[in-house]
Amino acid sequence: MPTKNVQRLLKDNEKYAAQLTGGDLPVLPSRLCCLVTCHDARIDPTKAFGIGIGQCHVIRNAGGSIKDALRSILISQHMLGTREVILVKHTDCGTASFTNEEAHETVNDNQGEVTVPPDFDFMPFVDPETSVREEVAWLKSLKALYKGTVVSGLVYDVETGKVKQVV
Amino acid sequence: MPTKNVQRLLKDNEKYAAQLTGGDLPVLPSRLCCLVTCHDARIDPTKAFGIGIGQCHVIRNAGGSIKDALRSILISQHMLGTREVILVKHTDCGTASFTNEEAHETVNDNQGEVTVPPDFDFMPFVDPETSVREEVAWLKSLKALYKGTVVSGLVYDVETGKVKQVV
Repeated sequence: MPTKNVQRLLKDNEKYAAQLTGGDLPVLPSRLCCLVTCHDARIDPTKAFGIGIGQCHVIRNAGGSIKDALRSILISQHMLGTREVILVKHTDCGTASFTNEEAHETVNDNQGEVTVPPDFDFMPFVDPETSVREEVAWLKSLKALYKGTVVSGLVYDVETGKVKQVV
Repeated sequence: MPTKNVQRLLKDNEKYAAQLTGGDLPVLPSRLCCLVTCHDARIDPTKAFGIGIGQCHVIRNAGGSIKDALRSILISQHMLGTREVILVKHTDCGTASFTNEEAHETVNDNQGEVTVPPDFDFMPFVDPETSVREEVAWLKSLKALYKGTVVSGLVYDVETGKVKQVV
């Protein structure tokens, strides 16, 4: 039996599929770009950043971590042909609201035992702007990053909906 | 100087921010759910799955890998309060088009030297339906998964736009 959320998803998808035309888009994104951002529910990259269907790979994880996104970035570039990376972190981010120690404590408290390895990195950060600068620099320093790749870093303000370029 | 893609993003964002009202949404997604799917450019979770702003965490990576999404899922549940996980893999996935060995060869050939550790896992898979079943089972077996979490697994057909539940 599907959950209430899955039922809703299936119903909404039925409407979407019924009106879909031209579903045979190429695998290669037309903007040759991959965008990395946070999994935050308040961000809709299509609406906020104008990313249309077929245009960019969209990688999303807690905090919009470039390190956590590395496997996807390498696949996007080397196996699928993108040539640009855009990182967008945001204000009021959940992943900037705790330390690694606090995350370990909370998970283990919730589960009633130690359930994640002590060295598991939840990759929290403090300031989005500083973190964008650091993570863009880290990515650009990697030898595996496709030669000549341009990497940009931006910060999105979830309250005003405005994005600004940092690097 | 912003790249052409960043210029376009900034311009589209200006229009978005200008019409935004009620930007002060809560951090906790209203459906208490996190959705994991692929970074594929042909998938727009808002349109295809009816995920509105503020409703779900949306985690995306190459292939829609649950293992790769684990840090984000744990943060989503334990630090931010979601209680359900929905995995959606899809047909014609780029991450099902190569083996680990091929990915290593391609990356190192492109860069002209060995640039990723030999044990780096690109997490390719073969069949989306089989992979969804295996990854959902793996996640459910984890002691760190919030107690009582319901995990569903679906496959999206990028050509027809139709999604079906697998598990």
